[in-house]
Amino acid sequence: MSTIREITMQVKSDSFKMAALDNDTRNNALQAIIENLQAHKAEIFAANAEDLKNGEINQIPQPVMKRLKFDEAKLADVCAGMEGLQNLPDPLFRVKLERQLDEGLIMRQVTCPIGVIGVIFESRPDALVQIAALCLKSGNCAILKGGSEAAHTNRILFNLIHEAGVKAGIPEGFLTLIENRADIGELLKCDEAIDLLIPRGSNAFVQYIMNNSKIPVMGHADGVCHIYVDEAANLEKALPIIIDAKTQYVAACNTVETLLVHSSVAAELLPKLSDRCKEVGVKLNDCPRAMEFIEGVPSTEEDYSTEYVDYILTVKIVDSLDEAIAHINHYGSHHTDAILTENNEAAEKFMLLVDSAGVYQNCSTRFADGFRYGFGAEVGISTGKLHARGPVGLDGLVTYKYKIFGHGQIVGDYASGKSTFKFKDL
Amino acid sequence: MSTIREITMQVKSDSFKMAALDNDTRNNALQAIIENLQAHKAEIFAANAEDLKNGEINQIPQPVMKRLKFDEAKLADVCAGMEGLQNLPDPLFRVKLERQLDEGLIMRQVTCPIGVIGVIFESRPDALVQIAALCLKSGNCAILKGGSEAAHTNRILFNLIHEAGVKAGIPEGFLTLIENRADIGELLKCDEAIDLLIPRGSNAFVQYIMNNSKIPVMGHADGVCHIYVDEAANLEKALPIIIDAKTQYVAACNTVETLLVHSSVAAELLPKLSDRCKEVGVKLNDCPRAMEFIEGVPSTEEDYSTEYVDYILTVKIVDSLDEAIAHINHYGSHHTDAILTENNEAAEKFMLLVDSAGVYQNCSTRFADGFRYGFGAEVGISTGKLHARGPVGLDGLVTYKYKIFGHGQIVGDYASGKSTFKFKDL
Repeated sequence: MSTIREITMQVKSDSFKMAALDNDTRNNALQAIIENLQAHKAEIFAANAEDLKNGEINQIPQPVMKRLKFDEAKLADVCAGMEGLQNLPDPLFRVKLERQLDEGLIMRQVTCPIGVIGVIFESRPDALVQIAALCLKSGNCAILKGGSEAAHTNRILFNLIHEAGVKAGIPEGFLTLIENRADIGELLKCDEAIDLLIPRGSNAFVQYIMNNSKIPVMGHADGVCHIYVDEAANLEKALPIIIDAKTQYVAACNTVETLLVHSSVAAELLPKLSDRCKEVGVKLNDCPRAMEFIEGVPSTEEDYSTEYVDYILTVKIVDSLDEAIAHINHYGSHHTDAILTENNEAAEKFMLLVDSAGVYQNCSTRFADGFRYGFGAEVGISTGKLHARGPVGLDGLVTYKYKIFGHGQIVGDYASGKSTFKFKDL
Repeated sequence: MSTIREITMQVKSDSFKMAALDNDTRNNALQAIIENLQAHKAEIFAANAEDLKNGEINQIPQPVMKRLKFDEAKLADVCAGMEGLQNLPDPLFRVKLERQLDEGLIMRQVTCPIGVIGVIFESRPDALVQIAALCLKSGNCAILKGGSEAAHTNRILFNLIHEAGVKAGIPEGFLTLIENRADIGELLKCDEAIDLLIPRGSNAFVQYIMNNSKIPVMGHADGVCHIYVDEAANLEKALPIIIDAKTQYVAACNTVETLLVHSSVAAELLPKLSDRCKEVGVKLNDCPRAMEFIEGVPSTEEDYSTEYVDYILTVKIVDSLDEAIAHINHYGSHHTDAILTENNEAAEKFMLLVDSAGVYQNCSTRFADGFRYGFGAEVGISTGKLHARGPVGLDGLVTYKYKIFGHGQIVGDYASGKSTFKFKDL
């Protein structure tokens, strides 16, 4: 049996072939994968039933069981996603810049795949299909490690995708499934073969990956998102946005954790908010000033940088937009933050100065998602500021190279003044 | 005195203000800097004379002395560079994507500064000015550590740039000079404050930075560049290109280290190459097959991945384009590689499959440089595949954020089917 290192070096070698595949070949493979999944759906559902049975035996929490389930609806979703991907423009071979450096010396900046991408993801079999499809469409080889709770479902999905892809002319190494958790440690050492790691999962897990590999990592550890209710907010709009951002999917990274309220609207907003939170089961952690208006647990400094992943919301009163911005930049995780205001100048300032991947006016932070951005799907959400930021779709899975076409030009002639550059964008 | 951590946190805080400066303010500051440098040029040259005197005492090698020198010509160059920067389009506030997610829910992907950039550079005072100017134009705060040999020149350049910038309305923290080598270690720990490190210098130094910081690093360690002389090469063009790529500036990272020659042209090319190399003092390391045609030292496996920074060239005979591509991808540093051929299909294949930042046809690898690409200047050259690749100019110093403008939209309405997305690019 091959070692992880040998496997990844073979994948690396196949990644160069991937870079040469045209869009039709990649789209045809996506189509073949859809057909293979649909033709074998009974086997997929049977494998999933086994995972679900084990999940019950192991008393896996209900939200995880829900994500683990792969049924007719989820299959339809991922197949629709792959159909959508086929229709999206090719992210490769795009000329981002075409420039004459001199007569007869032409430079083109052209997009190309990143190469080999390692994705470590949670117990969601639909994520396996989405990530495999995004990587294939963008000409990248993917090495996947899914949650062990979904082992049976992942294995059959992988087999069906791999079989269909290879039959459609894609190199063997386009998709690799890693099944042992112990192999993750080996994977982190393969910086010669793997160009990018995308870890998804708990804060501690992502931090571990970031601290233990030389491979560049794209993703996010924390998701500490804020909503700031400005003095010029429409409070009718504010309440549903806050409740949606907190409760629509409490385990998501784009869920609001801290509500900043301008002091001038606190007396009106907070009692109503408190009532709504009681109805939907959200507990409040209050700053001392907020305690004057509503019941709650006194908040601590630590609350301001905590991602609760729970029905808890910290409330803090601020006296100005500047104070709100400073709080967010200091305590936040640079993920997604919203201002509720009818004052567009205040919104503009907030959006300019808040240092986050997503800055919103008058809508829920829950919109931070590749599908909702119209990217078809996402491989993850990045809070880093290099390469892709926010939800990462196809555009985040490509890089570029500079191609220069000459006729014997040498730099010595430009250094000596015999030739001069004649820059002109074409 | 403040600690490095305190200094960088203050810079971080100023970086948010930098993000709000308009293009005119940044351009006016560049103009004020030009005027301040020119008004105090006698002091700059006096400081530089001191560095040069110390350099002589310390017997610094001649190439370093040449880079250390900051005279009327270098001042004119950096001022011309800053004038050029003023005329370049604003890299900030560019709308890369404007999309309707639904009626009344508009998303814009807008460029913004990265934030705080730490640049550690060699003993070239002109680099200090260029890097400061690029960071200012792109709205970033720069923390600079230059080579100690240029300490006096760096200090006065920094003082003049900082004074002029602050007078022109730029926040104090836009530029910081670190003078102690010991402080680099502290800097590497400031991952909360510093968004990006750009180390320039020796392979070992860059590797050290990459291995000892959680801060993302952009740059290159090795520069092992190749030229492949194809069977369809015009050998008249080949010789000057090879000699230029090897000797035009032997210490540069874009200098060729390995020459791959198709076996069908070896008998004609190699004796001529050997003669030219003797004339210009380039020593050859030959593979066994090359030894049949020319004199040289037998090459070792290690030669293939060595950046000589010297008048040495490794010569290897290959039997096919595929063999050349495989060699480059295996031994190269993904910097810049050229094919010499009149066969455009061969060039296309080479450019598609060679996994490097620059892939050239029929010109010298020495063209890999921000100025020669028409970027005005560069902060460095990246061999990484994330974010910027190749020479990094203004475009590599910005990121983006997603702004969404709503009117109270919540995700629950889209999940329930009450609302549906109506994606449309605007």
